[in-house]
Parts: sequence; structure tokens; C-alpha cells
Amino acid sequence: MSYFLCDEFQNMEPYIPGEQPKDRAYIKLNANESSIPPSPRVLEAVSQSRIQGLGHYSDPHCKQLREAIGETYGVGADRVFVGNGADEVLGFCFMSFFSPRMKLCFPDITYDFYRTYAKTNRIDFEQIPLDTGFHVNVEDYIATDRDIVLANPNNPTGLTLSVSDIERIVADKPNRLVIIDEAYVDYGNESCIPLTEKYANLIVVQTFSKSRNLAGARIGFAIASKEIIDDMNKIKFTFNPFNMSEFALAAGSAAVRDTAYLERCVHSVLATRVRVQKALEKMNFFVAKPHANFLFVSHPYISGGKLCGMLKERGILAL
Amino acid sequence: MSYFLCDEFQNMEPYIPGEQPKDRAYIKLNANESSIPPSPRVLEAVSQSRIQGLGHYSDPHCKQLREAIGETYGVGADRVFVGNGADEVLGFCFMSFFSPRMKLCFPDITYDFYRTYAKTNRIDFEQIPLDTGFHVNVEDYIATDRDIVLANPNNPTGLTLSVSDIERIVADKPNRLVIIDEAYVDYGNESCIPLTEKYANLIVVQTFSKSRNLAGARIGFAIASKEIIDDMNKIKFTFNPFNMSEFALAAGSAAVRDTAYLERCVHSVLATRVRVQKALEKMNFFVAKPHANFLFVSHPYISGGKLCGMLKERGILAL
Repeated sequence: MSYFLCDEFQNMEPYIPGEQPKDRAYIKLNANESSIPPSPRVLEAVSQSRIQGLGHYSDPHCKQLREAIGETYGVGADRVFVGNGADEVLGFCFMSFFSPRMKLCFPDITYDFYRTYAKTNRIDFEQIPLDTGFHVNVEDYIATDRDIVLANPNNPTGLTLSVSDIERIVADKPNRLVIIDEAYVDYGNESCIPLTEKYANLIVVQTFSKSRNLAGARIGFAIASKEIIDDMNKIKFTFNPFNMSEFALAAGSAAVRDTAYLERCVHSVLATRVRVQKALEKMNFFVAKPHANFLFVSHPYISGGKLCGMLKERGILAL
Repeated sequence: MSYFLCDEFQNMEPYIPGEQPKDRAYIKLNANESSIPPSPRVLEAVSQSRIQGLGHYSDPHCKQLREAIGETYGVGADRVFVGNGADEVLGFCFMSFFSPRMKLCFPDITYDFYRTYAKTNRIDFEQIPLDTGFHVNVEDYIATDRDIVLANPNNPTGLTLSVSDIERIVADKPNRLVIIDEAYVDYGNESCIPLTEKYANLIVVQTFSKSRNLAGARIGFAIASKEIIDDMNKIKFTFNPFNMSEFALAAGSAAVRDTAYLERCVHSVLATRVRVQKALEKMNFFVAKPHANFLFVSHPYISGGKLCGMLKERGILAL
């Protein structure tokens, strides 16, 4: 640690990226990535002429991409925030709306980023236990006074809350902010985006890293009230005004408009998911009802750690 | 403003991007951009096969790009931080090393971002006046106890401090952090990077947006002690671990290794600069001794505002 690091970061817990060993070629299952290429329209969009023009700054208002997302999801571009990956979108949500000592809660088993950010930035966070079936208990979240972050489907369980359950949480306390992280929503689930029309205390975050096969392009977005999106843009303009590259704006705009390709990719992932689930169940695995592009499994006799080790020996990274 | 925005941001001053009117085609001089395409190696690097593989996350450690920059500047990759544009690099410097109420200073006429960030994040900042010739007075910065941010060459004056003057500032108080923003250093100036070998309180920030003709790709970097870079990476890993896209890593690595192309581009810009300076001086303009890819000029009879208006009428954006 340098002499200069701010004292308040002494207890930070930086995110530790998943293992990426280079000793052999692995089948990587540990980041819920896609092995399908992005829409062919992305290749067209990242054209030679666009690369030749890179001497010019990209649009800091990200108009083209915000309009493309807005049209796809039936909301105005002024209700869309775009970021350099959904992590940056979440980072700007947290930076804008949570100060040190503000009260936040999320499940004890969920996407690690929430804890990492909250701990480092001294937010007063509570991790609410899942129930014995690994489900989020909606009553816990209706009861709490804390602001809320929920991944839906949850990661790594793949289990979901219904949109009507989430509406119960959101509607119950209008001054409580609720962030719903829908990274995996496209795999056959219902989105909470329509609720943002009605509730000013709801932010829905999505990513291009899963169903759009663009993890390496770093594109995420939030949909909320115009006021929330204005706040996030103002905060962005004080931290990094030009946060989206010309590449990200072009690739994202092309990908989001290709809904036919999205459906084909999702269909293909779901077919694989059904096939693998059946095979695992034949081998006595418990498989939690899947709603994402991954399976959450356990075996009656063999521990998860041991299974991961055995898979790694066979060239498969599961953790 | 939404109900949820943190109270401390009530007085924020978001950055206002330069005007980008669409009513006609303009010659844009207002962002010090480059009209030269990037290195042809960038086109090769952003290949079809790389786009096909975008389903996978980019390397959060940014190894390839940090090594390419380290080799080019003769420092270890562990002393290189890379960010989504130099603004993000500066953002992470500020976030890591300046808390609310810490004391910082910079010139009263300089890159607006420092003030924007400092004001929004409630840093106690002082803006030290330039002298009557628009120069930074080195003695002011030796005298102060505040941490320091200096653009060198300064923006928008294009005037420089010598590396030996900056060394005097850095050496004088080893517990005072000094950030030197060298966005325009490649246009014939000397870099402070070699000083980072010797001084643990110096951070040098550079960008690919000017001499590398890659403003739209969003790539910037910092070189400092290993401890400073470690701190910045830890902060990055709590805010946005995958901050560099596969595009940025590929384009940046290809561009930074093409030093012959860099030299050709710089030579071409300097030739234009000499030509335009001579023409302006013939028309009685005062031109501050230029060190960047822009000229800082004034006219004895016509105000800057009026000149900008007249240029805009002629299709040239100067402000």
C-alpha cells in the first residue's frame, strides 16, 4: 500500500477475478460467458471507416446507443443510462445514491460485486440469508427499511422472484431505492423494466455480456425514471464523461436492434441447458430450477470443491 | 434531481462537453482532436476473429496493454495503470488519493476536469493564478503544502514547465503527491516518466487520444511507483474490474508499439502548427509559444468571443 492511499480504503476488499490459468486450453464455465459470436451486425458496425475516424471523441451523451436501447425496450432515451459494462452502471448507481453509512441490503449468496463495493465504500450493508431452498424470501425485503439490491435471476443460484413479488417490494416503501440486476433475464424470464414506468424508486440494470455475447465489449445499461437517469449522468460527467468508446457505441447499437439473433442465441443456450440438466440429474445431481445461462448443482456424496478440482483436471473451469 | 441523489452532490458541477452542432459539417478545433487515422496496426488488431470472440470477458489485469506500454516507456508493467480514457485514470487517481476536505491545488487556467472532480467530491482545492504571461510559476508550487495536479504542457495555454522544474516541486516535499498530466507531451516535449523511477510521490498520466489518434477508443494510462499503481488497481477492482474492453486492449497494444507511426503523425502536426502560427502572426495575432497540437492565440483588437463567433459562421468550431 502506498503512503498516499486514503485512510478509508484500509479495509477494502477488491474483487478477485476468476482464475484464468494459461497452462492449457480450458473450457471456461466460471464466468457464465457465451461461446457464441455476437450478432453479425456488430462486425458490420465496427467497420474500417469507423476505425479510421477514431481520432475523434465518442459521443459523451451516447445518444445512438441510448436511443437503440430505448426503442428496443419501449422507453424514452432519457430513461436509459449506458455504462462501460454493467459493473460500471452498478458502480455509478452506488456512487450516486449510497454514501458511507447509508443502509443497504442484499442476499448473503449473490453477485460478489455488491459486497465488494459496499464494504470498500463503507456503506452499512446487511446480507439477508437465502432460505433453505436457496430462494430469496420476498417477505424479508418487504419488511426491511434498507435500500435493496437484488440480482434476478440470482447469481449463482439461477433462482428468480416473480415480477409481481418485486412490485410488492418496490410499492411498499416509495422512499426506499430498489436496484434489480437483470444480467440473466433474457434466458426465458420476465423483466421489471415495465415497472420503471410506474415507480420512481426502481432501477433495472442489464448487460450485453450474457445473451448478447458481448462480454469483451463492456456494455451495460440502466432503465429508471428520467430523474434517476439524469442524476447518474451528472455523476458520470464528473468522473468520466466519455465512458463509452466508439466501438462500444457501435457494437451495442447494432447488437440491441438484432432481436431475431438474440432469440436464436437464447434458444440455443436453453436447448443446451435442458440437455445438460437431464444428463446431470441422471447422475444423481440436484439441479436448482435454472433461469440463467448456467446451472447451480450439488451432488449427494461429492463436495463442490472436490467436483471443481476434478473438472479442472479434465480441462473445465467451474469456479 | 431525484429524491435519492446523495446530499453531498447537491453542489456538483458536472463537466459540460463542447458544443457538437449538427446543422452543418464543421471543422472541429474545440476538442484538440486528431483528423489523422490511427496506426494501420490498429485495423489489423481489431480483426474479425477478435470480434467473433467477444463473448468472453476482456482481461481485467490488462496484461497485454500494460506490458506494451511498459516496454515502450522502459518501465515494468507493474508500474503501469490503464484506464478507459485518461479521464478515468485521473478519476481513479482522485478517488484513491483524495478524500473530501483534503487539500489540492492546480492552476486557475487549466484542464476543467480537475475542478469538476474536486468540486463534486468536496476536495478543498485552491486554483493558483497563472502569471501575466500565462505561465505556471514554479515557485508557487514549491511553496504550497497542498497536493498538486499540473497539466504539462498546460491546456489551453500550451505552455510548459521543464522537467527539472517539476523535479524541484516533486523533490521538495516527498509526502506531497504530484500528478503530472502529459496529454500533449508527445508534440516535441520531454516527459517526466523517468522521474517516477526515483520519486514515490509522482504520478504521470498520458492519453492515446491525441498523438495516437485514438480519442474514440478511450485509452489512457498512468506510470508511477508499484505501490501507487497497486492502490489504483485495487480501487479499480472495487468499482469496475473489467474497465478495458477487448477493443481497447487490442487497439492500444497495437498503437503503442508503432513508434514510427507516432513520429510521422507528430511530425505532420508540428509542420501544420508552424505553418498556421506564421500565418496568424502575419495577421497580428499573439501566439503563445506552442507545445501541443493546438495554438493559444489572441488578437489586439478582436475579442476571443467575437473571433469564435465569426469562425463558427465560417464552419469552424474553436470553442
